[in-house]
Amino acid sequence: MTTAPWRDPALTASARVDDLLSRMTLEEKTAQLYGVWVGASTDGDGVAPLQREMTADYDWDELITRGLGQLTRPFGTAPVDPALGAQALARAQRRIAEAGRFGIPALAHEECLAGFTTWQATAYPVPLAWGASWDAGLVEEMAGAIGRDLRAVGVHQGLAPVLDVVRDPRWGRVEETIGEDPYLVGTIGAAYVRGLESAGIVATLKHFAGYASSAGARNLAPVRAGVREFADITLPPFEFALREGGARSVMAAYTDTDGVPASADPGLLTELLREEWGFTGTVVADYFGVGFLQTQHRIAGTEAGAAHAALAAGLDVELPTLKCYGTPLIEAVRAGEVPESLIDRAARRVLLQKCELGLLDADWSPEPTERIDLDSTANRALARRLAEESVVLLDNPDGLLPLAPDTRIAVVGPRAADALAMLGCYSFPSHVLTHHPDIPTGIEIPTVLQALRTELPDAKVTFTEGCGVDDPDTGGFEEAVARTAEADVCVAVLGDRAGLFGRGTSGEGCDVTDLRLPGVQGELLDSLVATGVPVVLVLLTGRPYALGRWDGRLGAVVQAFFPGEEGGPAVAGVLSGRVNPSGRLPVSVPRVPGGQPWTYLQPPLGLAGEVSNLDPTPLYAFGHGRSYTEFVWEDFTGGTPAEIGTDGTYDVSLTVRNAGGRAGAEVVQLYLHDPVASVTRPDVRLIGYQRLELEPGASRRVTFRFHAELSAFTDRRGRRVVEPGDLELRLSASSAQARHTAPLRLTGPAREVGPDRRLRCETEVTG
Amino acid sequence: MTTAPWRDPALTASARVDDLLSRMTLEEKTAQLYGVWVGASTDGDGVAPLQREMTADYDWDELITRGLGQLTRPFGTAPVDPALGAQALARAQRRIAEAGRFGIPALAHEECLAGFTTWQATAYPVPLAWGASWDAGLVEEMAGAIGRDLRAVGVHQGLAPVLDVVRDPRWGRVEETIGEDPYLVGTIGAAYVRGLESAGIVATLKHFAGYASSAGARNLAPVRAGVREFADITLPPFEFALREGGARSVMAAYTDTDGVPASADPGLLTELLREEWGFTGTVVADYFGVGFLQTQHRIAGTEAGAAHAALAAGLDVELPTLKCYGTPLIEAVRAGEVPESLIDRAARRVLLQKCELGLLDADWSPEPTERIDLDSTANRALARRLAEESVVLLDNPDGLLPLAPDTRIAVVGPRAADALAMLGCYSFPSHVLTHHPDIPTGIEIPTVLQALRTELPDAKVTFTEGCGVDDPDTGGFEEAVARTAEADVCVAVLGDRAGLFGRGTSGEGCDVTDLRLPGVQGELLDSLVATGVPVVLVLLTGRPYALGRWDGRLGAVVQAFFPGEEGGPAVAGVLSGRVNPSGRLPVSVPRVPGGQPWTYLQPPLGLAGEVSNLDPTPLYAFGHGRSYTEFVWEDFTGGTPAEIGTDGTYDVSLTVRNAGGRAGAEVVQLYLHDPVASVTRPDVRLIGYQRLELEPGASRRVTFRFHAELSAFTDRRGRRVVEPGDLELRLSASSAQARHTAPLRLTGPAREVGPDRRLRCETEVTG
Repeated sequence: MTTAPWRDPALTASARVDDLLSRMTLEEKTAQLYGVWVGASTDGDGVAPLQREMTADYDWDELITRGLGQLTRPFGTAPVDPALGAQALARAQRRIAEAGRFGIPALAHEECLAGFTTWQATAYPVPLAWGASWDAGLVEEMAGAIGRDLRAVGVHQGLAPVLDVVRDPRWGRVEETIGEDPYLVGTIGAAYVRGLESAGIVATLKHFAGYASSAGARNLAPVRAGVREFADITLPPFEFALREGGARSVMAAYTDTDGVPASADPGLLTELLREEWGFTGTVVADYFGVGFLQTQHRIAGTEAGAAHAALAAGLDVELPTLKCYGTPLIEAVRAGEVPESLIDRAARRVLLQKCELGLLDADWSPEPTERIDLDSTANRALARRLAEESVVLLDNPDGLLPLAPDTRIAVVGPRAADALAMLGCYSFPSHVLTHHPDIPTGIEIPTVLQALRTELPDAKVTFTEGCGVDDPDTGGFEEAVARTAEADVCVAVLGDRAGLFGRGTSGEGCDVTDLRLPGVQGELLDSLVATGVPVVLVLLTGRPYALGRWDGRLGAVVQAFFPGEEGGPAVAGVLSGRVNPSGRLPVSVPRVPGGQPWTYLQPPLGLAGEVSNLDPTPLYAFGHGRSYTEFVWEDFTGGTPAEIGTDGTYDVSLTVRNAGGRAGAEVVQLYLHDPVASVTRPDVRLIGYQRLELEPGASRRVTFRFHAELSAFTDRRGRRVVEPGDLELRLSASSAQARHTAPLRLTGPAREVGPDRRLRCETEVTG
Repeated sequence: MTTAPWRDPALTASARVDDLLSRMTLEEKTAQLYGVWVGASTDGDGVAPLQREMTADYDWDELITRGLGQLTRPFGTAPVDPALGAQALARAQRRIAEAGRFGIPALAHEECLAGFTTWQATAYPVPLAWGASWDAGLVEEMAGAIGRDLRAVGVHQGLAPVLDVVRDPRWGRVEETIGEDPYLVGTIGAAYVRGLESAGIVATLKHFAGYASSAGARNLAPVRAGVREFADITLPPFEFALREGGARSVMAAYTDTDGVPASADPGLLTELLREEWGFTGTVVADYFGVGFLQTQHRIAGTEAGAAHAALAAGLDVELPTLKCYGTPLIEAVRAGEVPESLIDRAARRVLLQKCELGLLDADWSPEPTERIDLDSTANRALARRLAEESVVLLDNPDGLLPLAPDTRIAVVGPRAADALAMLGCYSFPSHVLTHHPDIPTGIEIPTVLQALRTELPDAKVTFTEGCGVDDPDTGGFEEAVARTAEADVCVAVLGDRAGLFGRGTSGEGCDVTDLRLPGVQGELLDSLVATGVPVVLVLLTGRPYALGRWDGRLGAVVQAFFPGEEGGPAVAGVLSGRVNPSGRLPVSVPRVPGGQPWTYLQPPLGLAGEVSNLDPTPLYAFGHGRSYTEFVWEDFTGGTPAEIGTDGTYDVSLTVRNAGGRAGAEVVQLYLHDPVASVTRPDVRLIGYQRLELEPGASRRVTFRFHAELSAFTDRRGRRVVEPGDLELRLSASSAQARHTAPLRLTGPAREVGPDRRLRCETEVTG
């Protein structure tokens, strides 16, 4: 018996897939274009929007005779022991392979944003905490570990990272983003992708594109944005992640932008993504996103019409289950309404990816080969390091922190003693276990209270909750005030409860009308401050909250963004002084709860106070964060006006010296100020940064090699251009705090740049 | 001595202006392109944004030797007696004419939004009240009266109407708009323009375009909008006003949209406005808008650069005073940096308008010819009618209104006894007199309290303020509660204080972070409701406020939008029953203060509750309003499915019968529901309406002639198209309350339509 060409590993993947496609029926090709979601709930408490009404019926045994494109969340749907789950997945894969004519298994995908979203797997800090760390290398390490864990149990694709740039902090999914700046999101997002892909896992960039800009911050609401905002703010992180990360999949966003749904936008999914950027992987739907073209966007009148619109745009795979790409699509092709070539195009992309993953090989085996431990000691150490780097000390005016070892501490607040306070909505405990109340979290998650008692064994620590997260009851205030009055310091641990679709105060579908602290937590804080005992506010949140009401009245403010299973020790370590805080804000912290949306990327008009009675400037600026040590920025070069061409480079350098008594990390941030341009430009925007770890007395020199292409923006004609003229490079401690300014003039002609333009500022560290 | 051709009335205006231009120096031509603002304040309390820093110095006597384009607000800058002001203006005009070589006076412009913004002139209801009246004919009458008053004192141009469509109700200038629907804004705005132009006054459409969409509702903040939103929502009112109203001037907006400032956008000011729409009048700057291109938008590095960018885009006249179009522009032309042809192009437009106005004629005379009474009995009657038609009865669940004649009424609230509570920020008292505290308002403005005592002479009326408009003091609550407890009913008169740049709670530069009632007025209302005495909430506001907190707990809710000098009697008339309320909401009234922006023009995704925990649906929908009588909608034709071509028409009719015991007015609203389109579409949008006045027992039949072009929208390629497919015409009592539905199918090819497409639904009323 000769081997069919498609089985022949000596041939190119392309030749193998061509051969395979030529042998497949329409049904078999189409079967590669959807997933099935075994065991998904169809009651009202879904984990995807409108899950109940969007789920389709099918007969599994009949269905898999055609083959199957994807298996949806075999681990992430209900609690399963990882080893047993891996065996069950292997069994399912064998059944799928045996049922079809070609013996090709499904591609198994999972959520893995801040760790593999499954039982007993490490819960890392959420992406907003990655942003706060300004440490792409560490995020890459974490993603590598996540990828290896996915791979160990037979998963091929991870639905992460989220590359949405925050445009309205009220949005529930802010916790899943890396922040409000495209450069920060892009550099850290690309690092995550590199890590995941390094383990052989297909990374999936989402949500492509515009999702974070929904009007009024309502999840899935239409996006009001123009082409320049889209090109210069929304898209660059995807360019970073494709070019520097090598992501092999992209997820189309739920939203429409200015009337055009992303899932049915050939300009986005084909012309830009494939033709301009050269992407060759797969485009997958966000869950039920194909069906939504009919039911929510109403750009199609039937399921077949929705399938046609999505497939023609370049959306290859319907997830999480079949609804439009199943029978409706097949019938439409048979009726001549949809060209079969569209099926072939998408199936080819899917099969090429399966070929690349070895799933077309004769020796393919689904059996897990490694010992499975999804929360290893190494994982926990990574989770701890990232958590520690991500805690932001917003304020410490009188040096109240670190706390003395023998302090009397009144710990107060609904987030102090709840392990779930550490986790985001895509963690398995918050995402799924909420539907299985009798199942333990499966991982150890020390609370801030527990960790503080461990960190400060000689302290006298009391605890009272004070109030719930979003409960109006103020009955607990009295005791909280009483405990505080007896203490030297109050540590108020406030914040969010992550959840899905209205079940949390942060998370998917948990959008807020304003940035007031949830429930009566603000009133609790008022009461604590009124005692006169110094209050350390510790926030465990998924978004920034307005803190202007307490400006100047708190002993210290510590901001952590859902810091994961090791977040309790990380926060407690900052309080005790074991950890020197080094996080910097990836989002602005506003003064007042209303007046949104706002981010720091504003032209002068968006910053002006006098023309409106609303002062939009934040209380703590993007990039802000304090340390327990003192850094001196010295020996700056770049202070004299210079000229370079519109394709030139220019170096700015400075030395950072740790002039304080303890080791710490400083983050040097490079912002671009463009005084005059042909369209309005943000007053400043981040174009480089460097985190520097420094022992006491040590110094290191950082050099940013600015390239003129980093000043490029999209002009009135939609071209990306480098314009000649004056610029300023600002070496800053935050977006609002420039320490050194390098004036620079670009000379020569305006220069159009393409998708291969420089995205990143080269940075060198010496000493 | 022969007359120069430019003086010859027998020649065409074009020939006369050509001749004139050929005789003028560069300085003389340029002098036609700016205004001067005599007497404007340069302290911190300006009436235009950043007034202090933007004002320029000049020597009047030297300046006018070149001629002068515009005189800025000779009446609206400080209180002057109208007759004396008219004489002063005439003197100034004679001086200008005599100083220059050609004897051409300036064009004098004034603000006149809700009445001539000058001392002793009628203060009509604000535009949001016009929208609430749904009575374009009456608005046209009002504008005619305004125009005659302007003309009587020597003014040529009025800087009105505002055609911005509300996109975020938090914006301070919502009071100046006609509402959140482009059809309502367009039809009523066009009527205003017809009225003003019928008196010979140049109407100025503003703000062209996008201004109302500023992010976060902060005045002058950048606009995030795409081309389809711009084309289908922002622009149509301007098309109405140009085509149906014949407006001769357009004011460029302050804002940038997606990075491009309107004042420097040739695509907007030239390609669209002139080349596509055929506009031949003048484009003027919003005050300091040319200078802002340098200082706020930073698309120009110098004043000359700002002048060049604006002039090249098609902005003809710098207002309010010279800064960029003076010396900087002349020097730039001399230096060869700006082509003189741009000066000629703009000067030609200005001089053509002056020619048209008779200002180039030898017999031109500035002397006022009419007896001057800017607040005539006829004016007041018009103001009264419009005020009465604009009061919206939002709720009256148990028929508490009208009040019985002998009721014991506790009138409470900071808006009950303040005449200024009736006026918007562009009224002279709110706009200017606030800087002249010793000058009386100059017009009689009965308060709600005074008018209620007049309306109900047998009622026992007490009054207490309760609190200030935006003062945190709750010290007055106790007395308010005590008076209420002794009464049969409480009339709580709450709302806004109009002002400029932070001096009000509504008005230009008085944007809000959320839609909470200002100050402690909400808490006052809580206290009043808690007494158990039925509370009639009367709102005198410039925007909608969230009322969900009191839903089902109020005896009645009456919404008036700054109803003008006769607003007190109008509101009191509704309370007493003398006036049967007939207003309908031109904006949605939300349930909760946060979660903005939102308007009713939402595709399904923008309406969905399940995908976000924020329910954006309003408490009272756009178009909602109640009456004291009952209307029956009967004999509907159009209920059977019909087919027409994509260029066809279809009639739907129904009869409205007044089945109650008293005369009243019903507003029949026609909405279009487009179930499937190539881009997302609003679930419903207004495409026609008819206000019907009906005596008890009377009935009238209304027929809407729907034309397929009314379903046109901007497609993915930017073309405006009529697409074949199913539609529904919904005859409705509000956007949320369809009474009859006519299913309709458009057949034939998709059809592109141009700027001459039908904008308006023809409507016939019989019986």
